[in-house]
Amino acid sequence: MTQNTTDPAAVLATLIQCPSVTPDEGGALSALTDMLSPMGFSVERPVFSDQDTPNVENLYARLSGNGPHLMFAGHTDVVPVGDEAAWTHPPFSAAIKDGMMYGRGAVDMKGGIACFVAALARYIEENGKPSGSISFLITGDEEGPAINGSKKLLEWAASKGETWDGCILGEPTNPDAMGDMMKIGRRGSLSGTLVVNGIQGHTAYPHLADNPTRSLVAMLDALLHPAFDEGTDNFQPSNLEVNILDIVGGAVNVIPAKASAVFNIRFNDTWSVETLKAEINRRLDKAAKDRKLRPTKSNDSVFEIEWREQPSHVFLTRDDALIDTLGKSVEAVTGRFPEQSTTGGTSDARFIKDYCPVIEFGLVGQTMHKVDECVALDDLETLTRIYEQFIGDWFAAAADKAK
Amino acid sequence: MTQNTTDPAAVLATLIQCPSVTPDEGGALSALTDMLSPMGFSVERPVFSDQDTPNVENLYARLSGNGPHLMFAGHTDVVPVGDEAAWTHPPFSAAIKDGMMYGRGAVDMKGGIACFVAALARYIEENGKPSGSISFLITGDEEGPAINGSKKLLEWAASKGETWDGCILGEPTNPDAMGDMMKIGRRGSLSGTLVVNGIQGHTAYPHLADNPTRSLVAMLDALLHPAFDEGTDNFQPSNLEVNILDIVGGAVNVIPAKASAVFNIRFNDTWSVETLKAEINRRLDKAAKDRKLRPTKSNDSVFEIEWREQPSHVFLTRDDALIDTLGKSVEAVTGRFPEQSTTGGTSDARFIKDYCPVIEFGLVGQTMHKVDECVALDDLETLTRIYEQFIGDWFAAAADKAK
Repeated sequence: MTQNTTDPAAVLATLIQCPSVTPDEGGALSALTDMLSPMGFSVERPVFSDQDTPNVENLYARLSGNGPHLMFAGHTDVVPVGDEAAWTHPPFSAAIKDGMMYGRGAVDMKGGIACFVAALARYIEENGKPSGSISFLITGDEEGPAINGSKKLLEWAASKGETWDGCILGEPTNPDAMGDMMKIGRRGSLSGTLVVNGIQGHTAYPHLADNPTRSLVAMLDALLHPAFDEGTDNFQPSNLEVNILDIVGGAVNVIPAKASAVFNIRFNDTWSVETLKAEINRRLDKAAKDRKLRPTKSNDSVFEIEWREQPSHVFLTRDDALIDTLGKSVEAVTGRFPEQSTTGGTSDARFIKDYCPVIEFGLVGQTMHKVDECVALDDLETLTRIYEQFIGDWFAAAADKAK
Repeated sequence: MTQNTTDPAAVLATLIQCPSVTPDEGGALSALTDMLSPMGFSVERPVFSDQDTPNVENLYARLSGNGPHLMFAGHTDVVPVGDEAAWTHPPFSAAIKDGMMYGRGAVDMKGGIACFVAALARYIEENGKPSGSISFLITGDEEGPAINGSKKLLEWAASKGETWDGCILGEPTNPDAMGDMMKIGRRGSLSGTLVVNGIQGHTAYPHLADNPTRSLVAMLDALLHPAFDEGTDNFQPSNLEVNILDIVGGAVNVIPAKASAVFNIRFNDTWSVETLKAEINRRLDKAAKDRKLRPTKSNDSVFEIEWREQPSHVFLTRDDALIDTLGKSVEAVTGRFPEQSTTGGTSDARFIKDYCPVIEFGLVGQTMHKVDECVALDDLETLTRIYEQFIGDWFAAAADKAK
């Protein structure tokens, strides 16, 4: 049976029924292949691997045409279901009840993919192929370590000569209702582990020991105060959180040998990764000096920072054509021009922005990652109409610009 | 074969060969019984138990006479041997090599017990019974939780009407050489867990969460600075150490739900347990106010302190007769009047001081708790002579005082 690709609910049901819990493909990319091939897409399924992470399947599908190149990006992997017994409907059933479809990935983000597939199917049915190229860049490693996913997929495609003129990423961006918000940028994210080595000993003989907790507390205080900035025109203030503390060798009466803290900072366009690292080092050096902290005999420095690999660089999309076209498409369907936001966590847009302008717009995110993740059938229809409008208008705008 | 009780090395070898790793009796108290009974002691072996801790055997032996009552206190339990393969001689062999006897408990503190037994045996051989009573108060729970040991043994003896006029505790008190130091008091010890509850959440959405680490760091900084005091005539400055940090529910990108820190403070006679608790609460309240820390919605207060049971109260012995008599005995044998110190960890003297004046003097502590714990045979002879001198002089001084 050929899939009805103009009905986003039908497409979504097919995708939800594939148990593609990250990093498993679960049949989801094959289902997508079966939908896109009949529409004229040439589909490739590169698998990427890495020493320390599982192999991950990905999909790159291209419908070639004469004109600009629009990318739709997304992921079919989903987060684990959690407590399956707590779900009202089985998480891979795509059950429909009272106008809602239930299932893991309903909004994050098989729903977004389903709507773009349906929008494109409708567009082609009504208008024929667009006057340009469209590609789907779909990964199975967005919810996982993101090492064998979009980053490598983009490198792989670019190495084959692919270029793109704009991208829409279908992550759920609306806080409460369709039309609330698009994302035009994201804060950066930088993580590190602050390590302080001391000398273990008995609490009763502190002069024979050196408690690393003392230095750690002073240095964490310097990271947490004052605030890094007040925010910028497009971004919230940068914010640092200390989420893990670890002590090695301590007991009620035993001074520990080592203390460490893992911190993560979400930063705005006041900073680059490099200037932020320098500021963090400056604060720690100052705290060490102010408090007269000294390295222990066995160490060269008071502290060390182990930076986590793959920081996310901050970015802001300044492509007015992309932003205006999407915003007006949303307004045409919902009656509202969406807020242009840079809030929230990181997304694969951090990789895409190195290749072409990218913005994000998708479903309402309220139930993402939760038990009973679900999407309103009405929202699926709304998003499909927005995407269809956008496809037509974006290619038209590109054609105007080319004149 | 009757034990030769006038030779401290022979007594110590017998005791070391009993593997009395806390809380096991290991035959050590039975061996002591076999030595003391022939000297005229009536020996009792009360066993104490508790819901949460193992049963522990103890020994109370009394040689009754007409006059004041001197207590010798100590413990036969030893700490575990650690890496047995690392020992040069088996830890329960009492091997002698180059004038040193090796074995777990050699200095902490089977050696101290052996010397007091030998000193008393020599004294009685030369002078007959002393003009008063002597008792041994020996526990098998000093290196363990100290719940079923000296504390209960003292209560048990006192409830039977026992009273004492002075006590010498045989812990190893000399840092480097016999004659260095006696202990005339000890700092108090108070431990607590500082708990801060927060609200778990994603690092990218800190406004939906409340990171307890932020408050914990500010409050720990307030505990660590400034110093609690500058020290007193007889004591070092009070000192607080933070030895355990614990975070519940945190990950690189997840703000934790709860953060806690275990601290221990060794405090001098500037403070009582009660005034110190009040000062700690005052510092934490001030930090919470200064930093505008607020309780999370689900909590009544910014922080909680769970005080550990059984704090050690600070004490200082002011019994000049006891101090002078011991000091002069040390001087008579070693040529040096020992320093009167209050340094170091807690000992069972914290319990004894509620019943009678107590001071501590024993062997050189350098190898205590270590692999290859050992004692010089010369030191055993020196300490035996010091104790014998002290027994004679203390009863003589008491007789003078009674005149």
